[in-house]
Amino acid sequence: MTTLYGYYRSSAAYRVRIVLNLKGLAYDQVPVDLVKGGQRSEESLARNPQGLVPVLETDDGVQLTQSLAICEYLEECHPTPPLLPADPAGRARVRALAQLIACEMHPLNNLRVLRYLVDELGASDAAKLAWYRHWIAEGFSALEAQLSRAAGSGDFCHGDCPTLADACLVPQVFNAERFDCDLGDYPRIQYIVANCRALPAFEQAAPAAQPDAR
Amino acid sequence: MTTLYGYYRSSAAYRVRIVLNLKGLAYDQVPVDLVKGGQRSEESLARNPQGLVPVLETDDGVQLTQSLAICEYLEECHPTPPLLPADPAGRARVRALAQLIACEMHPLNNLRVLRYLVDELGASDAAKLAWYRHWIAEGFSALEAQLSRAAGSGDFCHGDCPTLADACLVPQVFNAERFDCDLGDYPRIQYIVANCRALPAFEQAAPAAQPDAR
Repeated sequence: MTTLYGYYRSSAAYRVRIVLNLKGLAYDQVPVDLVKGGQRSEESLARNPQGLVPVLETDDGVQLTQSLAICEYLEECHPTPPLLPADPAGRARVRALAQLIACEMHPLNNLRVLRYLVDELGASDAAKLAWYRHWIAEGFSALEAQLSRAAGSGDFCHGDCPTLADACLVPQVFNAERFDCDLGDYPRIQYIVANCRALPAFEQAAPAAQPDAR
Repeated sequence: MTTLYGYYRSSAAYRVRIVLNLKGLAYDQVPVDLVKGGQRSEESLARNPQGLVPVLETDDGVQLTQSLAICEYLEECHPTPPLLPADPAGRARVRALAQLIACEMHPLNNLRVLRYLVDELGASDAAKLAWYRHWIAEGFSALEAQLSRAAGSGDFCHGDCPTLADACLVPQVFNAERFDCDLGDYPRIQYIVANCRALPAFEQAAPAAQPDAR
């Protein structure tokens, strides 16, 4: 059985849940409580020395780390329905949109980073929130521009079917909403996210639907 | 002609240069001076609304963003020599190693982030340097553990030929050296980087060898 070690509110785990659901793959979930430091247990570090979730354990016992690497693995092993387009330029566009979120936005607003700001740099709550919203605004402004102008966007980030980019976008919007970020300037993003959320694969991957949700 | 819009010291551009060189592909370079804000010019933002380098313009005029998406594109269009292994689990391992650097380390130590720490949070030079070294140590400790224990590592991050993971590792080590980070605890990383640097593809991609190097 495929097993996902995750956390209901981890947006990296959320991406993988969306992809597993879109592919129609069954999986067990083992929650790792990031707030209580579960990712630093001996067992968790043995799975991933980085002390991060998600980790996906495949049927044959291979343990995979890094959400986008896991999603690419699932795409290669279970190509239907495809979450990357067929043409190399389209694939590059989808990956770039996914990476705009996964490499430029999410890493800056991670729990461990917010903790460093407060514990080591003495940031106030207001300063922490300003940091959070700054990187959301930087990232979503650029993403909105790319989604609005580029040939390629449709009901979803790329065309009219969900791709890897949508699997990254929805968790990032969930996070932004949690921190009360104003998303009024991003109508294209909101349109696409509404279309995603109407699909069961996304709905069933949402944090509130997970066994460890509080 | 393929054109790379980059900056000699940008480690994301450095990754793409390594991959272009490993693939034996000819390319023009157009420097964008990040320190002088060249990435915010109208022309740069038209290429990439994120105001980041690198951008790769292909023979047929398509403009690609995000270094890892560009590398995957080059891998798909120019499969020889391969920079990802043939088996899905191996491919996932290489991508995870690359993403450990590209999604967990590099984004935190970017120029724009260091500037925010100083300008908005009032961080001292010492606090900025401590931040930098903290995320280098977090990332490289985990990477060293993954490279040391996992079946898969050899003279390079994965086996005995360079992969996408090495194309990410060498620029990250270059950055760490520039900030005088102590790398003594990472012998495996040092061994692999020395092997990479002995190859002309890596040597010719180094910042000092670029036309805009100062």
